[in-house]
Amino acid sequence: MKKLLNDPQNAVTESLEGFTAVHADLVELSLDPTYVTRAGGPVPNKVGLVSGGGSGHEPLHAGFVGDGMLDAAVPGEMFTSPTPDQIQPALEAADSGAGVLAIVKNYTGDVLNFEMAVELAGDDDHRVTTVLVNDDVAVEDSLYTAGRRGVAGTVAVEKIAGAAAARGDDLETVTAVAQRVADNVRTMGVALAPCTVPHVGRPGFELGDDEIEIGIGIHGEPGRRRAPVATADEITDQLLDPVVEDLGLTDGESVLLFVNGMGGTPLSELYVVYRRARSRLEGLGVSVSRSLVGNYVTSLEMQGASVSVLRLDDETTQLWDAPVRTAALHW
Amino acid sequence: MKKLLNDPQNAVTESLEGFTAVHADLVELSLDPTYVTRAGGPVPNKVGLVSGGGSGHEPLHAGFVGDGMLDAAVPGEMFTSPTPDQIQPALEAADSGAGVLAIVKNYTGDVLNFEMAVELAGDDDHRVTTVLVNDDVAVEDSLYTAGRRGVAGTVAVEKIAGAAAARGDDLETVTAVAQRVADNVRTMGVALAPCTVPHVGRPGFELGDDEIEIGIGIHGEPGRRRAPVATADEITDQLLDPVVEDLGLTDGESVLLFVNGMGGTPLSELYVVYRRARSRLEGLGVSVSRSLVGNYVTSLEMQGASVSVLRLDDETTQLWDAPVRTAALHW
Repeated sequence: MKKLLNDPQNAVTESLEGFTAVHADLVELSLDPTYVTRAGGPVPNKVGLVSGGGSGHEPLHAGFVGDGMLDAAVPGEMFTSPTPDQIQPALEAADSGAGVLAIVKNYTGDVLNFEMAVELAGDDDHRVTTVLVNDDVAVEDSLYTAGRRGVAGTVAVEKIAGAAAARGDDLETVTAVAQRVADNVRTMGVALAPCTVPHVGRPGFELGDDEIEIGIGIHGEPGRRRAPVATADEITDQLLDPVVEDLGLTDGESVLLFVNGMGGTPLSELYVVYRRARSRLEGLGVSVSRSLVGNYVTSLEMQGASVSVLRLDDETTQLWDAPVRTAALHW
Repeated sequence: MKKLLNDPQNAVTESLEGFTAVHADLVELSLDPTYVTRAGGPVPNKVGLVSGGGSGHEPLHAGFVGDGMLDAAVPGEMFTSPTPDQIQPALEAADSGAGVLAIVKNYTGDVLNFEMAVELAGDDDHRVTTVLVNDDVAVEDSLYTAGRRGVAGTVAVEKIAGAAAARGDDLETVTAVAQRVADNVRTMGVALAPCTVPHVGRPGFELGDDEIEIGIGIHGEPGRRRAPVATADEITDQLLDPVVEDLGLTDGESVLLFVNGMGGTPLSELYVVYRRARSRLEGLGVSVSRSLVGNYVTSLEMQGASVSVLRLDDETTQLWDAPVRTAALHW
């Protein structure tokens, strides 16, 4: 294993220290327990947004803390859920009095620990709602989940709910918008090469020289099948088709197309995937009215990509377009 | 070789087609010959900025076309200089009458082909000046250069010169600012693992399991030495020390610290490198007043990073801070 790290046990903390030094205008770091909050504290009368999960998926989630998106992010250790005693103070720090929405990717550990933290914050008189993201169509249950996994679609939920909160919607409305996005986004990913968790020291899985894994999870969990190496267009079709089918997309609908890199794949290849996915969607009469391409929900240095499609309506389109200023998304 | 590609011969074009479809509000793609221009054409009375070079370093250069940075980018084939017949029309397309600055990384092919294109554009009555970027302190001459290579420091030259052009400086002034940045930025990189050029099909170099290459070039050209794997802090020091020495940085100066990923290294590791480099600079009494961390000048999926330091003055700080709206940099 060759990585730019010191003691693997300190990797998450040292990385967060670097991150918060670069982005001191946007974020503040708390240690013991570890969480990241919006610089300057919560916005008065605005619903707070909190997300979190295992580290190793950067820029998710701390890279989305700032104006128009998250108020706090709770990073666990590498590929490990954050603990309730990290999550609770982050929920409380994000509450300006208007309540807090917790956006949780559907992994058993994340769900349980967020549930406990929400209960503890409730005891302290904080109103907290939760929306689960489970956009991965690859598998019904997985190594770490009952039900579908939450993957790249999380970015869309956080962005659009963040914009709803920023324009002054109340907690029930922000929660409903977040749920609507979660209900209308689907994702499927592929791995070409695995990643190595630092304190483990060996790749999370193995692939033959001519093999790829279709339906991979963001922790390298098994997907639908091993498949032979194929062209980008063929692979893209194998990702997009189940997404389109599961969403039940029809002629005339409008979508956000999001091609996400797993961390170790060149940006140039993501655009090749995007090109094919867009062309296929347009061939179905679906209008790709919004797009995102880049490394947003990664798996350390894994090589691969995922394709997400979000069915848009007028309101979610407008909320997607609303200004955002975070380390990883800015417009 | 496993990549998300179709026919490797079409990789550059297909990727650019995807890129320009995503960013149609910012860029337009010309084919035969291939170059990317700012959407809507050159800004009247503004000096035009053009850069280019081999592909495989994305988001460089097309990702920096937009408001406040480049007016055109000329992508060659993978790791191959663009041709004069690509560069010339890009120079001419970027000229609104106020002249054009060409920002050229110091590689023999790039230099020769830009020279020829500048001459041809001159014959058509376009005023074009050129600034060479040669920020890599690793080697004096290299496989592809007489003199130092141009690497990540190019981003700073393009951003700051772009801001000078945007505020209305004339061609001589924009050129002088770009030259001042080029004179004050230094970089050194490390590779942990190589990359594979698609049409070549095998890694550009080989490293043992316990080896890294200090002073690597962005095409995998040899650097200063093979070294054993070390901690992030130790590696960072080996990159930063020659940069600081070459710049002659002294107590009380102010700098931009830029940690650039080579493409296949997780963002989280880049922040660990940043953390150390910042701490070392502060230990020398140097103020890190501006920062940039991310994958901006990549080498396909190479694992590694580079550390760049730019000595700032009041004017270049102000120009760095000026608004920019491109696919890869936005504030």
